[in-house]
Amino acid sequence: MDVAIVDDEMMPMDQVGKPYLDRGTFFGDGVYEVVRSYDGRIFALDEHLARFERSLREVQIGGVDIAEVRQKIDDAVEKAGYANAKIYFHITRGSEIRNHLPSEGLAPNFLLTVSELHDDDAAKQKGVAVCTQPDWRWKRCDIKSLNLLANILARIEAGKKGASEAILVGDDGMITEGAGSAFFAIDAKENAVITRPLGHEILPSITRAKVFQVAQNAGLKTIEKTLTPVQAAECDELFMAVTTKDVVPITRFDNQVIGTGQCGPLTNKLIEAFKEFVKEK
Amino acid sequence: MDVAIVDDEMMPMDQVGKPYLDRGTFFGDGVYEVVRSYDGRIFALDEHLARFERSLREVQIGGVDIAEVRQKIDDAVEKAGYANAKIYFHITRGSEIRNHLPSEGLAPNFLLTVSELHDDDAAKQKGVAVCTQPDWRWKRCDIKSLNLLANILARIEAGKKGASEAILVGDDGMITEGAGSAFFAIDAKENAVITRPLGHEILPSITRAKVFQVAQNAGLKTIEKTLTPVQAAECDELFMAVTTKDVVPITRFDNQVIGTGQCGPLTNKLIEAFKEFVKEK
Repeated sequence: MDVAIVDDEMMPMDQVGKPYLDRGTFFGDGVYEVVRSYDGRIFALDEHLARFERSLREVQIGGVDIAEVRQKIDDAVEKAGYANAKIYFHITRGSEIRNHLPSEGLAPNFLLTVSELHDDDAAKQKGVAVCTQPDWRWKRCDIKSLNLLANILARIEAGKKGASEAILVGDDGMITEGAGSAFFAIDAKENAVITRPLGHEILPSITRAKVFQVAQNAGLKTIEKTLTPVQAAECDELFMAVTTKDVVPITRFDNQVIGTGQCGPLTNKLIEAFKEFVKEK
Repeated sequence: MDVAIVDDEMMPMDQVGKPYLDRGTFFGDGVYEVVRSYDGRIFALDEHLARFERSLREVQIGGVDIAEVRQKIDDAVEKAGYANAKIYFHITRGSEIRNHLPSEGLAPNFLLTVSELHDDDAAKQKGVAVCTQPDWRWKRCDIKSLNLLANILARIEAGKKGASEAILVGDDGMITEGAGSAFFAIDAKENAVITRPLGHEILPSITRAKVFQVAQNAGLKTIEKTLTPVQAAECDELFMAVTTKDVVPITRFDNQVIGTGQCGPLTNKLIEAFKEFVKEK
């Protein structure tokens, strides 16, 4: 008889619940998104759903109706009733007895959670410390997949050093992005916002695109180029951007104080412009 | 109210079952092993448990008693009652509301399954076709983690080409290993078995070590060196090795016939020697 043990309980294999046999757990075989709402309106949902659809396609998970996903998001957000909500959702290839090659016609699994976001502008404005960590991730970071162990380990290491984000550095010595955020630098003399060009090494961050749009609207130049940690630390201002927190000033980078050690004037301008931008959308 | 949707069912967040909130699913935040038994005896269990312990340490999952894991394996194998069993087990960092940084003192989750292995010597002896695929995996393949999406995608692509295994090739053009197996070549003139040296790019395969031991016992030389696909295809014989199947001859490599297209004499010698070896252990 095929047998299983779940935690401390032994049982016949056919009594193991479906969520325990999720290919998401066995292989990280799935993709996800995080979106947020501002004042009851979900921000950039079309863009997030388009990226989700692309991720599904890239990992060859079929049989997902994106309109149905959108409906579930709407239903859950309405039910939750939060003005500012964080919405997480993932789809995995499905549940079955573990085997590398999936069965044909396996039904995907879906999970969505909605929780409240408590934006704390004052705390955010103070800025955060980050530290660099080697980028151990796979070669398709453009896919928003559930294979995030490298990100987790980098965050754990950053936490030990008192940093709230890890800025990942590739084997070539160039910064890729944050473990859970996009990374930006500001050249004040050039009046320019700098970030890494898109490619397989980084996520095509929606917030990154929005930050560039906001920056351009605010009269800033936008430059796509890769930086070394030394080059980044020499920049006038640094910030990161992530769906749930928008623009977050970085005031410490590997123990080096950036600028005056406070949120810089151009980062501040972007924070304010972003706030206006999300109201209009 | 925090809300979740599991598949098609909406519910308050606090009613979502623990397995749905497994960090194994959210992040692939866990490690695993596969062992097998021959005639009721588990093969190389000490080595597998030592590697498991190392994997846990490398990803900083604490609070696991390896003696308890061993007891669970023994109990489940006894209960299953198979002479030849495949035993899979994993530990994840635990279940909680999704957050990159884990909570302190989170209790790890454990899953183990035992199923019957049906060794088919005649089918195996016929050999398999493999094809090369780019190695998209992360930079710590020496850790046997649940981040296996790159392996899955390579296997899916191999399957489309009629190959039963993907042989992964790094950016440097060198073979690393199979998506789910160790990879070996034979130089008949040198009477030598060749495989890649250990490092962060490959799993420290237990079967690899056993194959080397068996080869040395059988009077073969063992050489650790990296090969390009072209160099591999020119070798006299190729084979792969994996816990559940031991030594499997490769008779086709990217559509090139290897040797005579049948299991070569030295591979055959290793298969037979391996059979004797596992009886003695």
